Amino acid sequence: MIEALKSYQTRNNEQLDAWLDRYPFQQQRLIEAMRYALLLGGKRARPFLVYATGSIFGCTEEELDTPAAAIECIHAYSLIHDDLPAMDDDELRRGKPTCHIEFDEATAILTGDALQTLAFTILSEGPLASFAESQRINMVKELANASGAAGMCIGQALDLEAENRSVGLEELEQIHRHKTGALIKCAVQLGALAAGEKGREYLPQLENYAEAIGLAFQVQDDILDIVSDTETLGKPQGSDVELNKSTYPALLGLEGAQQKATQLFEEALVLCKRYPTIRNYSKTSHDMSSSATTRLY
Amino acid sequence: MIEALKSYQTRNNEQLDAWLDRYPFQQQRLIEAMRYALLLGGKRARPFLVYATGSIFGCTEEELDTPAAAIECIHAYSLIHDDLPAMDDDELRRGKPTCHIEFDEATAILTGDALQTLAFTILSEGPLASFAESQRINMVKELANASGAAGMCIGQALDLEAENRSVGLEELEQIHRHKTGALIKCAVQLGALAAGEKGREYLPQLENYAEAIGLAFQVQDDILDIVSDTETLGKPQGSDVELNKSTYPALLGLEGAQQKATQLFEEALVLCKRYPTIRNYSKTSHDMSSSATTRLY
Repeated sequence: MIEALKSYQTRNNEQLDAWLDRYPFQQQRLIEAMRYALLLGGKRARPFLVYATGSIFGCTEEELDTPAAAIECIHAYSLIHDDLPAMDDDELRRGKPTCHIEFDEATAILTGDALQTLAFTILSEGPLASFAESQRINMVKELANASGAAGMCIGQALDLEAENRSVGLEELEQIHRHKTGALIKCAVQLGALAAGEKGREYLPQLENYAEAIGLAFQVQDDILDIVSDTETLGKPQGSDVELNKSTYPALLGLEGAQQKATQLFEEALVLCKRYPTIRNYSKTSHDMSSSATTRLY
Repeated sequence: MIEALKSYQTRNNEQLDAWLDRYPFQQQRLIEAMRYALLLGGKRARPFLVYATGSIFGCTEEELDTPAAAIECIHAYSLIHDDLPAMDDDELRRGKPTCHIEFDEATAILTGDALQTLAFTILSEGPLASFAESQRINMVKELANASGAAGMCIGQALDLEAENRSVGLEELEQIHRHKTGALIKCAVQLGALAAGEKGREYLPQLENYAEAIGLAFQVQDDILDIVSDTETLGKPQGSDVELNKSTYPALLGLEGAQQKATQLFEEALVLCKRYPTIRNYSKTSHDMSSSATTRLY
């Protein structure tokens, strides 16, 4: 499983690098910063979910490269903008200086902007299976829906607004369902969409599954901010506490949060096993769960 | 002609407002800021070009609403991010406080991000003529190409890099061909794509026309920064000089820049008249030219 994850990582990195090669002005700071931020490291959890989901419906890796590359561009852009001084003001990401530290703030803003655009370039131009056009449009629609003001962006806005005040469990879940959950769910949706009719049939079940693991990852992420160390995390340990962010351990206690994460992963497994065609998916889910010892970022 | 412009403006504003209505969390700061920035005013030059181009090929206004709304979202997002302290640091836009002044910097960054995404939501979900799917994908492709690291974003990066040093005429044109020209050209492309086969046939000619008027607008814009006043411009007069930006008047003198603008508009007219089907377009071009007494923004 770890091997599969590594192989998808390598594949995704090569794809992203090749997309960047297509731009003119290769020597320009913006292109350098895009390459730096995209290829800085990271687990490639969202591309992994695209490949894992598509493959259970019989898609080839080639048929999944396009949505996998697109969703990673959205994720990378969101990290660059979240790290900006006006947002979370982080100087370290994946163990390296954040984009605005390595380059400058203006370049970091533009780099995020251009990576968001690249996601849509990739979906509109990248190779896909033969029933391509309606599939492409559905992918654009789902990715835009998951990342904009109905998804990730509103999640970040809700999160910013919740800083320095206490929020309840329901509000915290709402924040994370949008901020990180929407894009994780979208990765599963894109994998299913790449499979055409077969995949679309199972979309509702897959979405329930994806919601559970999306939330599970966030709980795990909050836990790791406390129990891990800066080197493993690749960013300062304890930064949630420093920003007065509401977290699951703060609301439920560390042990309560750990129970919550386990419960969500188990829920995801049960959801998979219920549907014969995606039963194999439970292995993926279990492995994702047990390998989730480092951050999603 | 001014009436047509106003009617398209109103139509475009109504469309954008309706798109924003679809979001949940209407009371949230992010949605308020998106509405503020999108409906702050502005000439709607790019939507106008979409409507004007599509209508000469017989498209109805309904068939053009979708690309017109999408391109304005891209333009609006670029203004919000360009105005940020780390970029041009502008406090006034269209006579009102810029987004980060009216709200805050984090909200302004997110608002720009979410407006970019909205452009792609609109292209993937908005009503279009019946040959919709390949048309939609071509529109996504052209809009992404014009606004990302091969178009507007690299233009802004080149512009930032050129601050505080002297650039020649060729470099200045390269900056503007990307920074503002790419999106103006795209407006014309989207109008033509909305017309299907008929429009695609004339795309190369229309692109030449659009390149000429795109550059003409930029020259005019540089001139207005000198000869107009803050009230008319809706932003501080003389800001180009303050930021040490290279401009056409700085390179050619005021009179030389005025000659250059006239020459480019005439070039655009000649390009139109050469092709029978788009001859009527020369009227549009002429009216656009003569009404270009305020900024494009």
